[in-house]
Amino acid sequence: MLKARQCVREMREYHSPLSSPTTELRLDMNESTTGCSPRVLAKLNSMNERTLAQYPRREAGEKLVADFLDVAPQQLLLTNGADEAIDLLCRAYLEPQDEIVIVVPTFAMYDVFSQMEHAKAVRVPTGPDFSFPLERVLKALTAKTRIVVICNPNNPTGIDVPRSAIMQIIQAAPDAAILLDEAYFDFYGQTMIDQIGKLPNLFVARTFSKAYGLAGLRLGVMVGDVEQMSVLRRMASPFNVNAFAIECLAEALADRQFVADYVAQVIASREWLRKELEKLGFKCWPSHGNFILCRFGDEKKNILDALRARGISLRDRPDCEGCVRITIGKQQEMERLMAELKQVLSQLPANQATR
Amino acid sequence: MLKARQCVREMREYHSPLSSPTTELRLDMNESTTGCSPRVLAKLNSMNERTLAQYPRREAGEKLVADFLDVAPQQLLLTNGADEAIDLLCRAYLEPQDEIVIVVPTFAMYDVFSQMEHAKAVRVPTGPDFSFPLERVLKALTAKTRIVVICNPNNPTGIDVPRSAIMQIIQAAPDAAILLDEAYFDFYGQTMIDQIGKLPNLFVARTFSKAYGLAGLRLGVMVGDVEQMSVLRRMASPFNVNAFAIECLAEALADRQFVADYVAQVIASREWLRKELEKLGFKCWPSHGNFILCRFGDEKKNILDALRARGISLRDRPDCEGCVRITIGKQQEMERLMAELKQVLSQLPANQATR
Repeated sequence: MLKARQCVREMREYHSPLSSPTTELRLDMNESTTGCSPRVLAKLNSMNERTLAQYPRREAGEKLVADFLDVAPQQLLLTNGADEAIDLLCRAYLEPQDEIVIVVPTFAMYDVFSQMEHAKAVRVPTGPDFSFPLERVLKALTAKTRIVVICNPNNPTGIDVPRSAIMQIIQAAPDAAILLDEAYFDFYGQTMIDQIGKLPNLFVARTFSKAYGLAGLRLGVMVGDVEQMSVLRRMASPFNVNAFAIECLAEALADRQFVADYVAQVIASREWLRKELEKLGFKCWPSHGNFILCRFGDEKKNILDALRARGISLRDRPDCEGCVRITIGKQQEMERLMAELKQVLSQLPANQATR
Repeated sequence: MLKARQCVREMREYHSPLSSPTTELRLDMNESTTGCSPRVLAKLNSMNERTLAQYPRREAGEKLVADFLDVAPQQLLLTNGADEAIDLLCRAYLEPQDEIVIVVPTFAMYDVFSQMEHAKAVRVPTGPDFSFPLERVLKALTAKTRIVVICNPNNPTGIDVPRSAIMQIIQAAPDAAILLDEAYFDFYGQTMIDQIGKLPNLFVARTFSKAYGLAGLRLGVMVGDVEQMSVLRRMASPFNVNAFAIECLAEALADRQFVADYVAQVIASREWLRKELEKLGFKCWPSHGNFILCRFGDEKKNILDALRARGISLRDRPDCEGCVRITIGKQQEMERLMAELKQVLSQLPANQATR
């Protein structure tokens, strides 16, 4: 009888909790509710059947993104979303029983992809207020550590990681790949990409799913040392990135004003929302992403259900006790959320949420 | 110092020999030169920024394709091109040193993906005139065989594999996954999908890159036993398929006449081209795909170079001695190819190609 490898048979099914298609306001996936630049849309809507019928040339897109990030094309690989970048890294470096250090709570896919390689996930809990646990990470490093993942700013907490901490880890683990996931870079503004070419074990992942409003496009970026990237490039399917992603890249990168305006609005609305939530007595954490982590406490499930019934989806984060992650949308969407939330709270059976 | 796993360090870089962007007539990738249905194009060109900004819902597309193929959605997975389907299968079943049986010459990616799992590729040569070597495949099966790949019709030869041979292999290797790659099904008309649900070790791969003219879209399909597919589903990234692929599926599947007309034209032009090439003394093999294998012999390189200078790319197949693979385009494109080829031949130094 046919049997899959043990480590994949033992994998749990990962269901991303996508809200129903009828949800009016989807604030559970850290997507942009503003969408992409009109220039990207115009480009996509003008694509012809010839481009669609041909296998896509990733190299042309890689040149554009490399120029934009000020790295060499040989230091860069475009991927089918940042998910594929993470997956390729796990496949490149993890043998069975090797260790990958993951600071939790964080993005779920690091765990999923490392399971597939039959690696051992060493989960290091964050410190007080979800702060980055540098000392614990350093202590977790062993001779079997092949990857250390640092999500900066971290999803779902929004907390950032000091550059000095990242540097210490990179230097403490020269035989390990350090994956710096900068998916939310645009909302944060700090990067380690300047160290690519200097630190041979550093990898930086980026995505067009967040600030560029292009999650449907599936376009991720991995940047790293030329020699290491040459290995990742060999592993990737030559046609891993679709034609739309490649065709629209130039427009997406060129419309800087669009991204800047969107980022500025998200940051302003995020800080507004945080204050509003705190006024209601809910604890929030300072966020550097397009989302905010908020503690609803014991009433979390009731609040989430009631909001969902009103067409609004937030993301439950069972890995952060009593917390939900709220994607920042347009200001009016945040105002609607607050109005609905206040109504929901007034109708709760207890009307006294534990906060 | 950071080192990737040995098996991936040893991988050769796979460069798909994509012709230059200025090639007028690209007959080297088995793409459709006709393109996709106008209904698909209209749908794509009407997509809005909301769809682009959201993570795609693969499940909706899987229901459509499952209905179309008359299987259950649980028996099916949509993938980022058929490449990802093949890759997932290798990752699900191959442990290091396990064996994958591949009949050669064939599609290069089976080899690439199995290398990544550190598996041993057992390459079984085809029989006379590239016929399927059933006896040799049966003899190649061992206790370590975890996958047998059957590409039907085979790329690059166009040769088909008798259903009885496939059945014998499925039954002879109950502990192995039998991957039946039906990428060129639409030009062939025979399938084993009817056996899904009956033979628990059979997997059938399909693609929208060929008859549907959507290689740029990156959309593949894997069909198999519910239990096995549940493993593959767990391994796949939840957002492996882009929003365009999912959005246009309904239109692509609905426009049956478009696909039928294209397939009929390709088959007619293929047979026309074969006769023309044979008139020039070149050996061709009977093909069931949207391509034809032709032996140019010792003059191959000169002919390919000269055609390329005239804006036409054919695919060199060094794995088939003296042969090239020619994608079938529109009839007038095939007539242009023949006209240019005749001119090229008349100008060859020897003017006496060894055929």
